[in-house]
Amino acid sequence: MADLQTQMKQAVAAAAVEQIKDGMVLGLGSGSTAALMIQALGAKLASGELREIVGVTTSFQGEVMAAELGIPLRNLTAVDRIDLAIDGADEVDPSFQLIKGGGACHVQEKLVASRADRFVVVVDSTKIVDRLNLGFLLPVEVLPGAWRQVQGRLAELGGIADLRMAQCKAGPVVTDQGNLVLDVSMAGGIGDPEDLECRINNLPGVLENGLFVNLTDEVLVGQISDGVAGVRRLQRRE
Amino acid sequence: MADLQTQMKQAVAAAAVEQIKDGMVLGLGSGSTAALMIQALGAKLASGELREIVGVTTSFQGEVMAAELGIPLRNLTAVDRIDLAIDGADEVDPSFQLIKGGGACHVQEKLVASRADRFVVVVDSTKIVDRLNLGFLLPVEVLPGAWRQVQGRLAELGGIADLRMAQCKAGPVVTDQGNLVLDVSMAGGIGDPEDLECRINNLPGVLENGLFVNLTDEVLVGQISDGVAGVRRLQRRE
Amino acid sequence: MADLQTQMKQAVAAAAVEQIKDGMVLGLGSGSTAALMIQALGAKLASGELREIVGVTTSFQGEVMAAELGIPLRNLTAVDRIDLAIDGADEVDPSFQLIKGGGACHVQEKLVASRADRFVVVVDSTKIVDRLNLGFLLPVEVLPGAWRQVQGRLAELGGIADLRMAQCKAGPVVTDQGNLVLDVSMAGGIGDPEDLECRINNLPGVLENGLFVNLTDEVLVGQISDGVAGVRRLQRRE
Amino acid sequence: MADLQTQMKQAVAAAAVEQIKDGMVLGLGSGSTAALMIQALGAKLASGELREIVGVTTSFQGEVMAAELGIPLRNLTAVDRIDLAIDGADEVDPSFQLIKGGGACHVQEKLVASRADRFVVVVDSTKIVDRLNLGFLLPVEVLPGAWRQVQGRLAELGGIADLRMAQCKAGPVVTDQGNLVLDVSMAGGIGDPEDLECRINNLPGVLENGLFVNLTDEVLVGQISDGVAGVRRLQRRE
Repeated sequence: MADLQTQMKQAVAAAAVEQIKDGMVLGLGSGSTAALMIQALGAKLASGELREIVGVTTSFQGEVMAAELGIPLRNLTAVDRIDLAIDGADEVDPSFQLIKGGGACHVQEKLVASRADRFVVVVDSTKIVDRLNLGFLLPVEVLPGAWRQVQGRLAELGGIADLRMAQCKAGPVVTDQGNLVLDVSMAGGIGDPEDLECRINNLPGVLENGLFVNLTDEVLVGQISDGVAGVRRLQRRE
Repeated sequence: MADLQTQMKQAVAAAAVEQIKDGMVLGLGSGSTAALMIQALGAKLASGELREIVGVTTSFQGEVMAAELGIPLRNLTAVDRIDLAIDGADEVDPSFQLIKGGGACHVQEKLVASRADRFVVVVDSTKIVDRLNLGFLLPVEVLPGAWRQVQGRLAELGGIADLRMAQCKAGPVVTDQGNLVLDVSMAGGIGDPEDLECRINNLPGVLENGLFVNLTDEVLVGQISDGVAGVRRLQRRE
Repeated sequence: MADLQTQMKQAVAAAAVEQIKDGMVLGLGSGSTAALMIQALGAKLASGELREIVGVTTSFQGEVMAAELGIPLRNLTAVDRIDLAIDGADEVDPSFQLIKGGGACHVQEKLVASRADRFVVVVDSTKIVDRLNLGFLLPVEVLPGAWRQVQGRLAELGGIADLRMAQCKAGPVVTDQGNLVLDVSMAGGIGDPEDLECRINNLPGVLENGLFVNLTDEVLVGQISDGVAGVRRLQRRE
Repeated sequence: MADLQTQMKQAVAAAAVEQIKDGMVLGLGSGSTAALMIQALGAKLASGELREIVGVTTSFQGEVMAAELGIPLRNLTAVDRIDLAIDGADEVDPSFQLIKGGGACHVQEKLVASRADRFVVVVDSTKIVDRLNLGFLLPVEVLPGAWRQVQGRLAELGGIADLRMAQCKAGPVVTDQGNLVLDVSMAGGIGDPEDLECRINNLPGVLENGLFVNLTDEVLVGQISDGVAGVRRLQRRE
């Protein structure tokens, strides 16, 4: 039997899959909880409980997993809409603003989330924070030739930015788009995510950052109480 | 002897090269006038009139030309500063805001221009307009998998965007960064370049757009009067 | 009514589509004749004459067209096999060896052709030659940083190689993989395609060349005789 | 004081730097021993013992380090020749054939090594093997969309190939060129490196593999005898 932590993630994944209806075009997120969600979806398709589903993945990992489970996939350019996207997050604040990008997939993930009619976030309770960027660094995807320049511009905005280095290759992590990642710590955390997202994206050499602003419709939080894994719906603080 | 049009471009290029001093790190632009500027710079280095110059190029074209002329080059990541950048433009408005990107090099060009202590624009008089985007389309560089989605989002902003197609390969033009280009016409032209630049760059899937806002220090305009090629300094309208 | 040239291409396209059976995974080629083939396939799917087809495209062009026609597509990584691939060619020799790559798509095209159980080439009669590379240049896809070095190595092999320049962007054509194209003329044409394909692919910096060796199962040739468009099957000379 | 292992690497690095003369264009390799070589070179340039050196790097790591040490760098496209390249290796066999690519830089490394008039390999004694690929996997760089297909083709050649997965991003390692890496174990090791190098490079979807065949002029081996770090020149077995 799975440990409590895994049971909790499975509970959240299952709660998210409950929202999937026949015929939907689905955004399939990345990360460990999203992986459990994809597995649960695959099981429902195999049993016939769900039908006519099309998936759009946000990472190589999801693409391989979905293909193995027989979930029909389409590219983002080949779908007219996404009905529902389900993904994890690295931090969630009380207004449902997110930091994502620990896996360096935030470019694809934001494309899918921003395309979706409805975006549901699945996390465990450790990801809920009062203020973003005090515990988790903000990933910024930059052109290889621009990382030093962007690093300097981020310092002007009050951020300390380190190039993310790789373990299994020499030099820096390269994203699926062929770019580099700066992990940024803003002094005092991020007070105005909407403003900062736009400022960083406007820096020359920046493709995208990991702030997901005004995109999230619902946050499902896994928790353990009295030794039992459960799920609660986070209340948005206006 | 060169025709009047070429004489005019040479006059502007020469006027820009006048601003180069020994020891400068230079941003070397793209396009036909910038090419003449690079040639004039190469001649001054060969004659010994200028010394200790380092160039940073903004396109493949400039890199090949500068290498052939023996201009020492460095990558953007290998220089601490750029003293002076000289480049062309597709449109210049009275506040010195620009549209660039006809050659699909605006990502590199904006990196260099925004890094430079001083940015000088060299154009002929046909590029001076009252309002941007009524005559020249605004190029937006997008991830290959995101072009349809960005096209839709640009429509929400009032823009009609067409994918730039190639002549010498099947399918679309691919930029030096491996991305695609949407050429955008905003209804009524562009009234607030600063706002639009930021909005477009904040769209998921957009790397950069061709609006150069608050970057230009000086505009040198080539003109022909009484059959003689000359240069004037454009006055900025506040 | 379409002109004779178009009628001829349509006749070849129709002959190729005849070979498609229900349930097949199909490689969908690039170029004008392949485009007509994709249209004919779309019509048969719409009418219900063909069912359960999955397409794998070889270019952006084919992907857009197939999506618009409602042909279900999968990525190359998501299919276990390709039953039949249909594509054009720039030159076909008597042993069914090909030069492809006029559209700079030969990397994707060769991946699909080499994966297919059966590879059918559709051309008009002008593409049939006695010896390759006397009329059409051989495209070689190279890393951006390696083009000069590869150009030198090709010269050692007896080839004159020019970098393919773009019309709608500054500088060279960039492929869908982000690389450059050298167009090569071998002195005296290509006598041993199998040997040359391997030698060129072994040069550092080369991704792929446009020689398709021992891949083609059938060549359908469009021709006009007595003012009527028709199709013949090319006989392979051993 | 550095430990014995580091002393040994420093001794090899120093022996290699001994071969550098004023005015040379140098290929600067990757890996820990090459890093020590770059540092030793930087010290000689700073002291004035060496002059007029130009470096061409083989990895991001080397580029950053050389820039910090003030070693003038050029891109591969901007140099006419490389006089001497110095790099490490993952395995060296008695005929001086190599496996490289543990750091996923073998594409750039092979470009530089094959361009150099003289290629010197610096290793410690653990890298010397009787037969390649019994201890170290052979890296093969492949297009992202082709990894499954190449994996299948490598199996036909007798190789078991695993996709190299990343630690600091979700999914696979992405190379500096934006591709993926298959790590291959050939049954019984590699008997004929020259033949295998060519066969693998001829597979559609393969950019380059980590076999360096007939490129190496000299192998310097660090060793410890009687507790003292030293260097020997490996004898080539014909």
